[in-house]
Amino acid sequence: MKTQYSVGILGATGAVGQKFIRLLENHPWFTIKALGASERSAGKTYAEAANWIEAVPCPGTIKNMTVAACDPEFFKGIDFVFSGLDSSVATEVEGAFAAAGIPVISNAKNYRTGKYVPLLVPEVNPDHIHSIKQQTYDPSGKGFIVTNPNCVTVPLVMALKPLQEAFGINYVILTSMQAVSGAGYPGVPSLDIMGNIVPFISGEEPKIASEPLKLLGELQSDGTVKDASFPVQATAVRVPVLEGHLLSVSVSLKNKPASIEEVEAVWNNWKNPLAELNLPFAPEKPIVVTKEDRYPQPRLHSYDENGMRTTIGRARLTTITDLSFVALAHNTVRGAAGGAILNAELLVKEGYL
Amino acid sequence: MKTQYSVGILGATGAVGQKFIRLLENHPWFTIKALGASERSAGKTYAEAANWIEAVPCPGTIKNMTVAACDPEFFKGIDFVFSGLDSSVATEVEGAFAAAGIPVISNAKNYRTGKYVPLLVPEVNPDHIHSIKQQTYDPSGKGFIVTNPNCVTVPLVMALKPLQEAFGINYVILTSMQAVSGAGYPGVPSLDIMGNIVPFISGEEPKIASEPLKLLGELQSDGTVKDASFPVQATAVRVPVLEGHLLSVSVSLKNKPASIEEVEAVWNNWKNPLAELNLPFAPEKPIVVTKEDRYPQPRLHSYDENGMRTTIGRARLTTITDLSFVALAHNTVRGAAGGAILNAELLVKEGYL
Amino acid sequence: MKTQYSVGILGATGAVGQKFIRLLENHPWFTIKALGASERSAGKTYAEAANWIEAVPCPGTIKNMTVAACDPEFFKGIDFVFSGLDSSVATEVEGAFAAAGIPVISNAKNYRTGKYVPLLVPEVNPDHIHSIKQQTYDPSGKGFIVTNPNCVTVPLVMALKPLQEAFGINYVILTSMQAVSGAGYPGVPSLDIMGNIVPFISGEEPKIASEPLKLLGELQSDGTVKDASFPVQATAVRVPVLEGHLLSVSVSLKNKPASIEEVEAVWNNWKNPLAELNLPFAPEKPIVVTKEDRYPQPRLHSYDENGMRTTIGRARLTTITDLSFVALAHNTVRGAAGGAILNAELLVKEGYL
Amino acid sequence: MKTQYSVGILGATGAVGQKFIRLLENHPWFTIKALGASERSAGKTYAEAANWIEAVPCPGTIKNMTVAACDPEFFKGIDFVFSGLDSSVATEVEGAFAAAGIPVISNAKNYRTGKYVPLLVPEVNPDHIHSIKQQTYDPSGKGFIVTNPNCVTVPLVMALKPLQEAFGINYVILTSMQAVSGAGYPGVPSLDIMGNIVPFISGEEPKIASEPLKLLGELQSDGTVKDASFPVQATAVRVPVLEGHLLSVSVSLKNKPASIEEVEAVWNNWKNPLAELNLPFAPEKPIVVTKEDRYPQPRLHSYDENGMRTTIGRARLTTITDLSFVALAHNTVRGAAGGAILNAELLVKEGYL
Repeated sequence: MKTQYSVGILGATGAVGQKFIRLLENHPWFTIKALGASERSAGKTYAEAANWIEAVPCPGTIKNMTVAACDPEFFKGIDFVFSGLDSSVATEVEGAFAAAGIPVISNAKNYRTGKYVPLLVPEVNPDHIHSIKQQTYDPSGKGFIVTNPNCVTVPLVMALKPLQEAFGINYVILTSMQAVSGAGYPGVPSLDIMGNIVPFISGEEPKIASEPLKLLGELQSDGTVKDASFPVQATAVRVPVLEGHLLSVSVSLKNKPASIEEVEAVWNNWKNPLAELNLPFAPEKPIVVTKEDRYPQPRLHSYDENGMRTTIGRARLTTITDLSFVALAHNTVRGAAGGAILNAELLVKEGYL
Repeated sequence: MKTQYSVGILGATGAVGQKFIRLLENHPWFTIKALGASERSAGKTYAEAANWIEAVPCPGTIKNMTVAACDPEFFKGIDFVFSGLDSSVATEVEGAFAAAGIPVISNAKNYRTGKYVPLLVPEVNPDHIHSIKQQTYDPSGKGFIVTNPNCVTVPLVMALKPLQEAFGINYVILTSMQAVSGAGYPGVPSLDIMGNIVPFISGEEPKIASEPLKLLGELQSDGTVKDASFPVQATAVRVPVLEGHLLSVSVSLKNKPASIEEVEAVWNNWKNPLAELNLPFAPEKPIVVTKEDRYPQPRLHSYDENGMRTTIGRARLTTITDLSFVALAHNTVRGAAGGAILNAELLVKEGYL
Repeated sequence: MKTQYSVGILGATGAVGQKFIRLLENHPWFTIKALGASERSAGKTYAEAANWIEAVPCPGTIKNMTVAACDPEFFKGIDFVFSGLDSSVATEVEGAFAAAGIPVISNAKNYRTGKYVPLLVPEVNPDHIHSIKQQTYDPSGKGFIVTNPNCVTVPLVMALKPLQEAFGINYVILTSMQAVSGAGYPGVPSLDIMGNIVPFISGEEPKIASEPLKLLGELQSDGTVKDASFPVQATAVRVPVLEGHLLSVSVSLKNKPASIEEVEAVWNNWKNPLAELNLPFAPEKPIVVTKEDRYPQPRLHSYDENGMRTTIGRARLTTITDLSFVALAHNTVRGAAGGAILNAELLVKEGYL
Repeated sequence: MKTQYSVGILGATGAVGQKFIRLLENHPWFTIKALGASERSAGKTYAEAANWIEAVPCPGTIKNMTVAACDPEFFKGIDFVFSGLDSSVATEVEGAFAAAGIPVISNAKNYRTGKYVPLLVPEVNPDHIHSIKQQTYDPSGKGFIVTNPNCVTVPLVMALKPLQEAFGINYVILTSMQAVSGAGYPGVPSLDIMGNIVPFISGEEPKIASEPLKLLGELQSDGTVKDASFPVQATAVRVPVLEGHLLSVSVSLKNKPASIEEVEAVWNNWKNPLAELNLPFAPEKPIVVTKEDRYPQPRLHSYDENGMRTTIGRARLTTITDLSFVALAHNTVRGAAGGAILNAELLVKEGYL
């Protein structure tokens, strides 16, 4: 297995791009060799082009790299790229990279619904990566696109997958309380959110209603995915939290659990398909169930297992929907850059990179 | 109609007590003539005893009043008392005042489930006050107890009452995002809540599940209330907001609305039973429906109509539960001290005070 | 004295413009009859053009007014305008209005250093308004420009003026902890300031060093002002506060006070030159000295006297600089829109409007 | 050199105690073998006794340890203790441990002014540890007490020490903007500090005025320290920041620097006395000077070099005091638990432990 890769970051100066840079600093397989951003940034050093907002210093090797425009021309010799591009440009740019034979591991929403584009959470639907074979973005067969879902979808499907397997799901109702980092930088104005809640996030609820169905769907022999068929009803609000989305979830199950302990055992005993793969970014325990009522909390638990864990709490049987719980995951690590890195690691293991 | 009353405040130094003092400063009917607090505060001036936390100055007339212990002895000549007492002492103290012939308008939870104790939101169940006639706390018939509900329950029943009348209710699922002022002072430590969410508030969810049923129930001829019978399933979390609880609510209705406009018309055209009564604290519009997705917000709208209004937003028909919306009300005004004052005003109009 | 004026707001959709609209809602003399904003907003209703961020509702009469471009053409019949314009356009636009015979009461910095432009805090240097007579922006003599200072300067000169009169000032060292509302909207990104401090505000410190000297200077017979001559050394930082700038000030005095009580007496007994004028926005007590160590606080005291008061606390004699204290004022009321309105009121009284 | 030590934590359940536990988790020399707390906690497991507030999980080995009362009886076999005790009990308890022959490395203020007690910041005054030899708390000579200073004092003396050596210091004026974690847990109520500043911290300013003088003083041949003699004038305020104290400092120097570059060179070239010692907690660069105006920021830079670095920014020559700058350090790492650990490491190197 090849394990040394030269990677590029598209959208390198943005919030997700910065998280890619932070997370890849000491990655054992992937080394950043190219940084792509807008024309405005091209030609500058990264230190000049980016307003670094991470709470750890920007790696010194990155600071002095020159930022390029997001054109495959400037990414010769790069094995694949991570994309933190804005959705306003991702369709064109990511398509161009794939067509040029450079695989794109994307956090943007643009290709998530593509017929043969894996929408991937490695612990949940690892087999979906094989859709790649049907992709025709690059006639030579080398370039392709793989996506990770919306940041709320990740902890949601992590919590739902074991329930789907054990009980079957009728429907899901949730309220997602989302951190400001999800809106990028400059993102949410402080005057809007300090000591406040904004009860709407543009475009978010439809994604939460649809993406889990593809993730929890079944890969067909023709390379397409047959979506799961239960409805998901979401209210997404912005809260004054820096990192970590907290979801208040109620689920109606097809087969009724006899006790909350039975549900917790399902989560605790769930067989993680990545368990034997030794992927560097795979959390040892992708799901942890806490019994302490006051947990999980964004500030305390978002960075558990380097931000790659989903923590479930307050699980209880309820009269209307059978089951209610809260779930927390780091929105820009597990829900964005870290999830994309784990996707790339799985692609390496499976021989696609 | 008598309109000049000497009132006392029990629990005067606490967060709710301070809100009573602030709200009553220029009340046309009620003048504060006595302040009750713990033994520790008794004998001090109010300025000495209280750590004033309101964002407007403490009224000068109150500052120099001497705080008394919460004993009816020290409340001679007082027409009635408002109680912001802690639940650990409210059973005994409020009972003693009622027994001594001093009506108690209470914000504490202790007597809310009392067989003949009105749990009152004047716009929702004004007729329930007549339960008072069956109360026997004071053999002489002069003392009685009236309560207002939990702070989350108020905007919830304000939103549900018109729906109940127009469509009937099958069930309600909600997540309540609650401001720190709901926990009193010192209340929530800053280390727990700054930039964070705590997904549990002790004792809150059972109250949200039960109190709306009494409020939306029917007064029987024997003076008891027959509870409404639909289930309410709540997740209550603490958010870093100072004032204003925001509820994310999903409702299943017995009769299905044809459009969201039909639902909004039900709210907008709802006949407010207080409309003709000219109560000083009654909001002109107890319910307002906003069409702007980003509203209502705690910081912007909690103090609309002096904090006595409930604002509904993001109303939409949904696949699972028929209807979803958010609702906001000021937790310590509409949901506590202001609600209690409105209760007292209705009692005046109805001849009970 | 004419007391009914038709006024216009320049920069009406911005943060300061919104504060003008909020504060003028029930003004006894001034009625908003025209709203000016950028070309982008021109032609829209105010409700469409503005993203209202005040915590009280936008007045209904304003919501439906049509916004005009900031061209004097569209302000016929307007007696004068308040300007909350951005400094990038204020030089040209304010100059054009003055030239067209429409007096400009401006919050922008552009003309503050103008030779004959009053930089005015009515309690501090009311006589400076007579510089207007030398202005030549409008050959007809009708149009002129009057400015209010930077938001930090206001509480600073309010605190310094009595000290200057009583003791004389050698120098001033301060750290100003400034609220996010001072940066307008969208202003400070939440990712920059939640749970954080940014130790720099572009352009702020030079203004704090120079503006107090003009305000505390002396009007000369030729209509110019001779600046006061002591140095002011400032560090301006942004803090996660919504409204209210808090200043930590150390002052070296020419004549040494014998006790802190002597200093406090100077502040408490200071003769307010507006005391007899009955200006609607003049606070009864422009300076209040609090003896409670934990006061003043932005959240609790910024809106004292409708946001027009300066509160001084923690005054104490110190070894190095003689005197240290903290001072608080509302940055967008007293330090911006409210200060400009008070300026206009003084101009009315003095016959300039 | 012995490098394996069994250590105890006094005040283990408090905020500083938790930080000791977090920081010592993988310490190469020190292993926690005993936990001491109040009688109320004694006998419980640590997981039961402590309300864990750190943003990383409590180490599993600690969770199951049984908490003991703070009595030397229960600390047999412990080489030394770290104390995060509250000052209300530290005098007695720390004295008892020292008397029992167990060295105490304390974060409490109680013994800081002791005649022979080192008040120690290893980079600043490493030679002061030799005062220990004169201590008589333990007649056998084994037990002793070493203290670290107040959390504001640490970054202050780190910044001042090179200035003192290069220029000499006339006086220092500062405003310290202090994080809520400095007040421990539950500490500052959220209602006091969210979106607010409290301009007073009880007992803080006198410590900031006196402790730097001992730290920057000279060890005498009799084991006492002759304090430095310049005055320090501080205003300490509480801000809504979780971790990291930011100081706005102005310094008057005896010899005037010709340029700000000269000052920065003094800091950058300062010879760190720990440079060759390879102490595990010693930062590679204890002082870093940043040239970016908007830095340092508590959220971004408090954890630089594991929270052990002091970052200086905005350095500029000023008219009144010669030099102004801001300085940041992590208040509970560098300013408390981490500083104490570094003290212990130096004591190991110097043969005192």
